[in-house]
Amino acid sequence: MAQKLKIIPLGGVGEIGKNMTVLEYGKDIVVIDCGLKFPDEEMLGIDIVIPDMTYLEQNLEKLCGFIITHGHEDHIGAIPYALKKFHVPVYGTRLTMALIENKLEEHKISTDTLQRVSPGDIVQLGCFKVEFIKTCHSIAGAVALAITTPIGTVIHTGDFKVDYTPIDGEPMDINRLAYYGSRGVLALLSDSTNVERAGHTVSEREIGKTFEHYFDEAKGRVVVASFASNIFRIQQIASVAIAHGRFICFQGRSMVSLANISMELGYLNIPTEMIVEVDKLKKLQDDQVCVITTGSQGEPMSGLFRMANASHRLNIGDGDLVIISASAIPGNEVGVSRIINQLFHNGAKVIYDGMADVHVSGHAFREELRLMLNITKPQFFIPVHGEYRHLYMHADIAVEMGVEAEKAFVADIGNVVELTYNSGKISGMVPCGNILVDGAGVGDIGNVVLKDRRLLSQDGLVTVVVALQKNTGKLLAGPEIISRGFVYMRESEDLIQEACDILLPQVQLFAEKPHAEWSNIKNGLRARLKEYLYQKTKRTPVILSVIVEIPND
Amino acid sequence: MAQKLKIIPLGGVGEIGKNMTVLEYGKDIVVIDCGLKFPDEEMLGIDIVIPDMTYLEQNLEKLCGFIITHGHEDHIGAIPYALKKFHVPVYGTRLTMALIENKLEEHKISTDTLQRVSPGDIVQLGCFKVEFIKTCHSIAGAVALAITTPIGTVIHTGDFKVDYTPIDGEPMDINRLAYYGSRGVLALLSDSTNVERAGHTVSEREIGKTFEHYFDEAKGRVVVASFASNIFRIQQIASVAIAHGRFICFQGRSMVSLANISMELGYLNIPTEMIVEVDKLKKLQDDQVCVITTGSQGEPMSGLFRMANASHRLNIGDGDLVIISASAIPGNEVGVSRIINQLFHNGAKVIYDGMADVHVSGHAFREELRLMLNITKPQFFIPVHGEYRHLYMHADIAVEMGVEAEKAFVADIGNVVELTYNSGKISGMVPCGNILVDGAGVGDIGNVVLKDRRLLSQDGLVTVVVALQKNTGKLLAGPEIISRGFVYMRESEDLIQEACDILLPQVQLFAEKPHAEWSNIKNGLRARLKEYLYQKTKRTPVILSVIVEIPND
Repeated sequence: MAQKLKIIPLGGVGEIGKNMTVLEYGKDIVVIDCGLKFPDEEMLGIDIVIPDMTYLEQNLEKLCGFIITHGHEDHIGAIPYALKKFHVPVYGTRLTMALIENKLEEHKISTDTLQRVSPGDIVQLGCFKVEFIKTCHSIAGAVALAITTPIGTVIHTGDFKVDYTPIDGEPMDINRLAYYGSRGVLALLSDSTNVERAGHTVSEREIGKTFEHYFDEAKGRVVVASFASNIFRIQQIASVAIAHGRFICFQGRSMVSLANISMELGYLNIPTEMIVEVDKLKKLQDDQVCVITTGSQGEPMSGLFRMANASHRLNIGDGDLVIISASAIPGNEVGVSRIINQLFHNGAKVIYDGMADVHVSGHAFREELRLMLNITKPQFFIPVHGEYRHLYMHADIAVEMGVEAEKAFVADIGNVVELTYNSGKISGMVPCGNILVDGAGVGDIGNVVLKDRRLLSQDGLVTVVVALQKNTGKLLAGPEIISRGFVYMRESEDLIQEACDILLPQVQLFAEKPHAEWSNIKNGLRARLKEYLYQKTKRTPVILSVIVEIPND
Repeated sequence: MAQKLKIIPLGGVGEIGKNMTVLEYGKDIVVIDCGLKFPDEEMLGIDIVIPDMTYLEQNLEKLCGFIITHGHEDHIGAIPYALKKFHVPVYGTRLTMALIENKLEEHKISTDTLQRVSPGDIVQLGCFKVEFIKTCHSIAGAVALAITTPIGTVIHTGDFKVDYTPIDGEPMDINRLAYYGSRGVLALLSDSTNVERAGHTVSEREIGKTFEHYFDEAKGRVVVASFASNIFRIQQIASVAIAHGRFICFQGRSMVSLANISMELGYLNIPTEMIVEVDKLKKLQDDQVCVITTGSQGEPMSGLFRMANASHRLNIGDGDLVIISASAIPGNEVGVSRIINQLFHNGAKVIYDGMADVHVSGHAFREELRLMLNITKPQFFIPVHGEYRHLYMHADIAVEMGVEAEKAFVADIGNVVELTYNSGKISGMVPCGNILVDGAGVGDIGNVVLKDRRLLSQDGLVTVVVALQKNTGKLLAGPEIISRGFVYMRESEDLIQEACDILLPQVQLFAEKPHAEWSNIKNGLRARLKEYLYQKTKRTPVILSVIVEIPND
């Protein structure tokens, strides 16, 4: 009996971020992408979120390797965590690999598993034959994948847009996708990020005209903020700036790092004599300066943030023109808005998304998604890279385009989509979910700790300490009350003193009751304090009661 | 010598929210609006933010009253806090007053100072003659103000849009504004919220067509979420629903309350026999049901949130159509997006802003702002109701329209804009700022407490307790370590035990050193624990060290 092909998303469905998809056939597994997600506002104190990889640990002997579509964090960010567990090859194009290499070095992990490929290359991984196909996206080196399995070919688009006039001169290899489409595609997994947007993305090249216009007008310094990884954007800004007689100064750690990597690999072409360090800028006239910086998302401590808030050698003010060449990622709107307001308040002129064409998306709009469906003509369709609304809408489009309704799957994370050459179903579920990374801890922070952090963040904490004689329960010291984040203690001495007074009869109970009842008394103490504080302040801090038992001499 | 007119914004400039503007001439003060702002994400645990009213307290004898332009929270929300301090009249139209009355009753404050007026009414307050002028906005009863002072007339637009076909049939009274413009307006204070948007708002009436379309198509239940205070929207939804043979069920506390008030006052007209309680819905067929609910901003515990998350008698699922008739207020994007995803996941069809014309703004776009400037022809211009970028853009537009550049003022909160009949300047600053309300506390939470809450939210708290003999410093008990929000204690026993072991030599120092050095030892204890925990976990919890001193027998 023929084996079945299993397609298992471990991330990236029902969410934007931590993209990761498992393909399994017989005794072979390949994994497409291995990304991270940034924590949402409820995950207090968490640094990053990565996919649960338990299923791979359980099937270690099958794992042939990772195939990476491009170098964005939501596609590569979890690789260090994966490679700490699995010593398997990782395939990707040059820029993708350079970015992964950087990461592995930071994590002090060997880079000897990294395998550089080029678009057009074919790699055999177990029973899977993987072809890398050139696409366009907001980073260089993006590819789609055509993965030929024993029962048919799976196309995974990666993140893509259809740009006929990209900055690197190489449009998406539609013909190769069409070749597979004509031969017959078993399943298409396609980027759903922009399915809500009608029409077709604008070419990256088009916004060069906007830069031309504003550089023509600018009389003072020009500061442009963008994503460090958008090399094509950086190239356009730098080219226009240099044509206007301006020198380029890169600011922000990731911008400097990405610019260096991209210049080394030849993705970015800027004459080195036109690049200046920040301490040389004061020797130039204002109209000879173009600063390219991080901070387009309003991130605290980014280059632009510090320039706007007088904590950078470059303080932006009167006469400066700032272009924010990005749109706000959902969740960052308030931060971006705040930095724009600050820049206006400093006297700068600010150009941002919505005011002028300073940004284009790197993700296909609806007509491009239709093009992809049209040329690949898949039997099965699995929308990926999107929240549920995106996945459902994308599935509807696939059905409109001729995919049979029961062959379009909106999968949850961990769902096993099981395909034969002509039938498919969601057959089960593997271990999956969010693994929270906090400092050195990977997965050790759970709901209990997060709930405590949320409670602590709301009304702070009150600690009551009592010292008792171990055997008798005689009160030796306390009750003493200390708080953080609840009230300003110096101004609330009366409140705290009154609370201590009220608790005194309660703590004297320890001496009156047998030891077995102490735990009840302790709970009663906490309840009484909570009640008192709520009555006085209408606040409910976390209450910690500490009973120190002093051994008898 | 003639007195000067002082215009002092105490809120609503450089921010969206807590609108409040003081007009002062000689021995008289009137205050326009008295709103609240919702806390931003850094104000952890804070309920609401109100303007600092110290300046009014300092000038109590001058205060003639409050004039309220309409009943939104950012215009009326701080009134209870003001009336606890000042017993002065409050003027507004009927719905505005009904909403304020509700608030005062919740706060157990007398409503005897409330004065109901109608558009066209004129009220004399000290030397100020105030005329209420009909405008249009996303709530009924909105007015602009023409305030004639001894040196000229000030026009304050309130929040407004220009709607020639409003649902109540009464467009903005442009002619009255033009009357003042023709006589000569000293200063215009105008709503800047939508200055970034080109063109003209769409009439509220237009989106009725969208509702017609979706109600025509709907076969199951229809659930519409909107702002409770947008009575015109509610009227349109209800009218279309009833025309389609559906009964109306209001859900969400504020929706039920606003619907009742508006029906009593005659702003909302729905035959009572067409309104049903939620427990009667199961007797109706699905295509006889229209639920109108709160929750358009994705607020947890709102009607729509609970319906989407299976914690409401009405669980939204397969076959239901949900229309979110609102746009996300900045900061709420993630919450709205989450609820839409959940509804799709439940099998519902969801129509939302951007997909179809289900919402129009209540704030004037650029051409409407130009109309206002054109008809009032002010000598001085002060943009209000906006973040800095809005204020600067609006000032630029005023200058384009003929206001002299030095007569357009972008004011900060607390700035005193001082006008004579032909000159003006920013002459100073009065006490001002954000007063944070947390539970029963008004203004008692400052930066220290907020900083502690932020730190607590990031990595939690670790408390180390040590009991010493009072005179000798002999260690009697401890060190004991308790944490919240740091690690899950049960799984981290080794970590905690090792920390105690490491601290032991430190706490023994108390017995070896004189009492004067104990405070240093305590600091050293905290530093050592911090260092150890960071080394082990790369986290930096708040560390509280408690030294209990036990008196000698």
